[in-house]
Order: sequence, then structure tokens, then C-alpha cells
Amino acid sequence: MKIVDVTTTTFRYISNTVRDSEGHGHPGDPHEAKQSLLTIKTDEGVEGYCFGANPAVIESLVKPLLIGKDPFYREYLWQMLRERQRLNLGSLSDRILANVDMALWDLAGRAVGQPVHKLLGAFRDKVPAYASTMCGDDLPGGLATPEDYANFAKWCVFERGYPAFKLHTWQPPYEGAPSVKRDLEACAAVREAVGPDVDLMLDPFHYYSREESLALARGLEKLNYLWMEEPMAEHSMSSFVWLAEQADLLIVGPETAEGKHYARAEWIKAGAADVIRTGVGDVGGITPAMKCVHLCESFNMSVEIHGGGVGNLHVLCAMGIPGRYYERGLLHPFIDWEEVPAWLNKRDDPMDSEGFVHVSQ
Amino acid sequence: MKIVDVTTTTFRYISNTVRDSEGHGHPGDPHEAKQSLLTIKTDEGVEGYCFGANPAVIESLVKPLLIGKDPFYREYLWQMLRERQRLNLGSLSDRILANVDMALWDLAGRAVGQPVHKLLGAFRDKVPAYASTMCGDDLPGGLATPEDYANFAKWCVFERGYPAFKLHTWQPPYEGAPSVKRDLEACAAVREAVGPDVDLMLDPFHYYSREESLALARGLEKLNYLWMEEPMAEHSMSSFVWLAEQADLLIVGPETAEGKHYARAEWIKAGAADVIRTGVGDVGGITPAMKCVHLCESFNMSVEIHGGGVGNLHVLCAMGIPGRYYERGLLHPFIDWEEVPAWLNKRDDPMDSEGFVHVSQ
Repeated sequence: MKIVDVTTTTFRYISNTVRDSEGHGHPGDPHEAKQSLLTIKTDEGVEGYCFGANPAVIESLVKPLLIGKDPFYREYLWQMLRERQRLNLGSLSDRILANVDMALWDLAGRAVGQPVHKLLGAFRDKVPAYASTMCGDDLPGGLATPEDYANFAKWCVFERGYPAFKLHTWQPPYEGAPSVKRDLEACAAVREAVGPDVDLMLDPFHYYSREESLALARGLEKLNYLWMEEPMAEHSMSSFVWLAEQADLLIVGPETAEGKHYARAEWIKAGAADVIRTGVGDVGGITPAMKCVHLCESFNMSVEIHGGGVGNLHVLCAMGIPGRYYERGLLHPFIDWEEVPAWLNKRDDPMDSEGFVHVSQ
Repeated sequence: MKIVDVTTTTFRYISNTVRDSEGHGHPGDPHEAKQSLLTIKTDEGVEGYCFGANPAVIESLVKPLLIGKDPFYREYLWQMLRERQRLNLGSLSDRILANVDMALWDLAGRAVGQPVHKLLGAFRDKVPAYASTMCGDDLPGGLATPEDYANFAKWCVFERGYPAFKLHTWQPPYEGAPSVKRDLEACAAVREAVGPDVDLMLDPFHYYSREESLALARGLEKLNYLWMEEPMAEHSMSSFVWLAEQADLLIVGPETAEGKHYARAEWIKAGAADVIRTGVGDVGGITPAMKCVHLCESFNMSVEIHGGGVGNLHVLCAMGIPGRYYERGLLHPFIDWEEVPAWLNKRDDPMDSEGFVHVSQ
């Protein structure tokens, strides 16, 4: 089987998410937005798909590499793309590697009639989810106050059935953000609202100082939170070593730090996190996300998967050290997450009444 | 798809390999020997096979776990077997885990009509081989003298086309073994015989002392050898840290040390080897061998695969950090390695005239 074409189709849809000046999404008025679909075509008619690829980069850097190749050579193709990043770091991001790798896994699954997690060697078919909120805002009744978070957490846990809840708190440009005091007030309100037994997590502002991060961790320990993510810039690994040594709370990372499985190996060796984080979009696809999982398993390190989406769901179902939760969202009181995206026939992360997300079969 | 039966078939064949009192194989008179075939059967008629499994252990410990399970859940089944080792370490060895895992991969490949390396995500279709000798002996014209090794190396390299050659030298119970001096004499004779450009490796006696190991390494450096394996008992990881710090020669390991990917993570962290070694038989299958590969890739550590066989060949063809060589053998002047084993229709590691072994398609 050979790859004969690589195309991207760009289409418009109506979005109700707007970006603030720092790039975080919030509910907003419906407006036209763009989405794209990457398609890898073979001479045998089998195709593989992934949403979200950058058309210009696919056309100029990816397509020339893929044409004529056997699509089952995912490892070879991924390594070739990784090598090309050396001279194209500004444009050939890990996100694009992820799009291509996911389309190749999708193609392989379609070619042999098996879901991707079974090609990898399956471990399970469903994963408990946590409700992962959007960042804090100033929308009345949205996520503007600690009470808003508490009310939303109650709805997520007791009405919708999520077994766990994660706050993304206030970040610039919102007034008064960031604030360790206000973050802890929101976290305390949520703990009060859901009771002592629900797993809670925090993803705070990612440019806090060392001492602010430690204050957050100490506060969350008292509230019996499960973990905290990325309170500081992750390029300073030493800061995370410092934090992990002093905090009893589980510190989860790295998330946005570049470096794929290589970076995660260094974090493990340095003792910079208690639980390692990876995700197909962060490290360049299912192929390297599984490398991260296997690395972590070798050191008895747990792995939590960053972000939702069908690629992460298949990784979660193929992991022998099962990640504790699937991250569902980003959720907000004003957004109906169960609504099917305009470009899908059904949601790709359906959650049942007991809080489990099921992988496609 | 469900597993409905797990069977072993034991059969007799004529062998020309005999074991010395320490367990190493040498050429001998033809005699009857036993081999067994593990078969995993499903309700859809698809089966998976692996040679070499222990019938009693399969029947008592493995079969009850597999019956009724989906054979595509390789990760889950491997982890369950690994857990069962806790209470059955004396009988449920990593070698048996490897047999089961390979049969499951074989089954998956047959079910979807693809070779295993393509299920994993292929990197290549062929691997250069090295001729790996049996241990030294006292058979005239066999591997009894340095000149014997030199003659055999010339034949392997210049007649048969192997691009590289590895000596297993003399071990007890042979008289005068072990001897650093004699090992180095054999290594020098081989270097002299093949010239300066052929890659040469040594696997010496695995109970040398630290100073004997360092003397060997220093001698091999002068002879421009590529690597040395396991000169000391591998349970003493500190000894390998000591050796790796002082020797310029590449030290490859661990090989026989138990501990799967976990042990290899510790060797990397400690700096106990320059190149990591793994093999499906050593660590419990294709599934954990790939975990080792991904662990090593995360630290930029090269991997060399221990031993031949179809499972190792598929791993070598799926690795993104390609192992340098496939280990072909164990070879001896008195044994025709190209002869097809009685239980196969053709050899599973065919080597072409340029020294490449090709994976099945």
C-alpha cells in the first residue's frame, strides 16, 4: 500500500468560543470559525483522517515526505518528520506531527478493521473522566467567582455524573489575576460544594513564582486536592524540582514544555514531577505519547494524559499503567459540551451516567 | 473475538546440539530432542503460535487467565501475567511471558493480515546481521583455538557475507577457562583475520572480576572492537558503573539480569552501560521489549537486541532508534545454520548475500 495524496480541506462552522488577549477560550456570541481536515489517501482506496492540521505546512513540508511511502511505516515516517523539525522548528510543530501520526494510525485501523487501541495492544475500553473547566472569567453566573466554580462543580458531579473536577482559575487579562488567594478560595469553595470524596485538581496560572507555587500546593494539600499542574513556566525544570521536594501534593508535568519523550525522561531523572504528563498534541502523536507511557512505566511513574480527543482516548485505553482520568472539556456553565461538533456525526468522547468515556470499537 | 483454548503440542526432532555441564550448547552427535508449540485459539478460528513454551506452566498458570479474553488485549493480558509472577516467580518466568506475548502478536497479525512490525509501526524491512558464535570448545577444527576463531570469522565474513562477527569465548567446564589472556588472543586473531574494517564484538565469561573485565575492555579497545557484553554478573550493577566509567569500549547490557524495562531504566539512570540490551526472551515479549526501546529512545541510548528469532526481528524492524545488528546464531563451523529446523517450512531469519536478514511480510 502506498500513499498517493495528502490533502487538507478547510471548512467554516459556527463557534461559540472566543479567545481573550492571552489566548484562552471563553463563551461568546456565535460567529464563523474555520476548521480543517487532513486526509491521507492510498492507492488501495483506504484513507486516514485527522482534524486540525495546518494546510500550508502539510502541503510544503509533510506531503513531499509522505507521497509514495507505505502508510504502515508510522515509526519511520514519524522519525523523518522529527528530523525535519531541526531546520523547520518555527513551522513544523509537534502539533502537526501529531496530526499526521493520528491520521496514519486512523488509516491503519481502517485498513485492518480494528480500533487503534487494539492495534497498540488494548488494556481497557473505558476511562473515567474529569470535568475540566475553562479558565476563570468575569461573566455573571459563568466562572467569575468562587461560588460560580462551586455551583458548576456541583452540577458536573451530582447532575452530570463526573467523578472528578479540575479548575482552570483566573489568568490575565482578567482583573486581579493571577492571585494565589483567589485561586485557593475557588478551590476551597469547590471542595466544600462536592464534599470530601470527589477527586479535585487545579491548573493555575503558569507564570507563578516558586513561593507562590508552594503556597498554592500547601493550600491544596489542606483541601485534599489530588494534584496540581504547571504553576510555573516549565522551561525552568529546576523550579519544579524545588517545588516537588517541598510539596506533599502531587505535582503533574510537564505539559507545554517542548521536548517530547526526551523532556519527560529528564524530568523523571531530575525528580521534577510526581506524575508525568503527556498528550498526543503535546508530544507529536500517538507514537511518541506511547513512548512517554513506556518510559514512565519503566520508572513506575504514573502518567496523566493532557487534553481530550480521540487520539488521547486510544492512548489511555492502550496504557498498561492506566492514566487515572480522561480530561473532558474545556467545560463552562454556558456551553453544552454534549452538543455534537458541526463536523462530526456524534461526539468522539461519549460519557455514560457513571462518568466513563468509551473508546470507539 | 475471544480466546477459547490454549494448547501446547510437544514433538520430537533430531538435534545436533548438546549441552555442557554449565548449560552452553556445542555441536554433538545427532540425538532425539523435544520442542513444543504454543497455540492460542479463538472462537473465530484465528490462531496464534509460538515455539518453546513450557506445557505445564501454560496449562496451570496461563490458560486460566487467557480463556474468554479478547486476544487483542495484549497489554492487559501481559500486565495480568506480570502480576501473577509475584506469587509464581519460580515457575512463571519472563521467557514464558514472552512465549504468550509472541503468540498473541502472531494471532493479531494473522487476524488482520499484516506482519507484526507493521502493526507496531514499521521502521524498516531488513537488518544487517552479525555472526554470533557458540562458546569455545575443545573440538579439533571447531572453536578450540584462537586460529579456529580466526578461520571461522574469515569464512563468515568473506564466504557467507556477514558484515560483523561476535565471539563467545571459552567458559567452564573447558580446561583453562576462563582466561582473559586467551580471550584476547582469540579476539586478536579474529581482528587480524578480517582486517580493520569489520565490526567485531565479544561476549566473554560472565563471572569475571572487575579488574579482569577492565583488562578485557582495554585489550579490546586496542583491537578496535565495537562492544563487549556481560563480563561480570549483572546483578552487581555497581560493577558495571565502575567499568563503564573507566573503559572507552562500549559496554552493552543488561542481558540476563531480570527486571524487564524496570531494570533497564535503572541501568540508564546509573550510567551502568553505554548501550542498552533487550530481547523478547529476556524481558517477557515483544510488548515489554518495545517498552525498553521507547525508554532508551527517551534517553538517546542505543539498543542492541539480544538473540535471534522472529520476535526479535520484528522488534528490530519496528524500532525508531534502529538496533545496529540482528544476532544470527549461535554459529559453529560444524553446524549448517542455513538448514531449516525440522519444525519449520523455511528459516525465519533468511540472510541475503549482503548480510541483511529480512522480516516476513
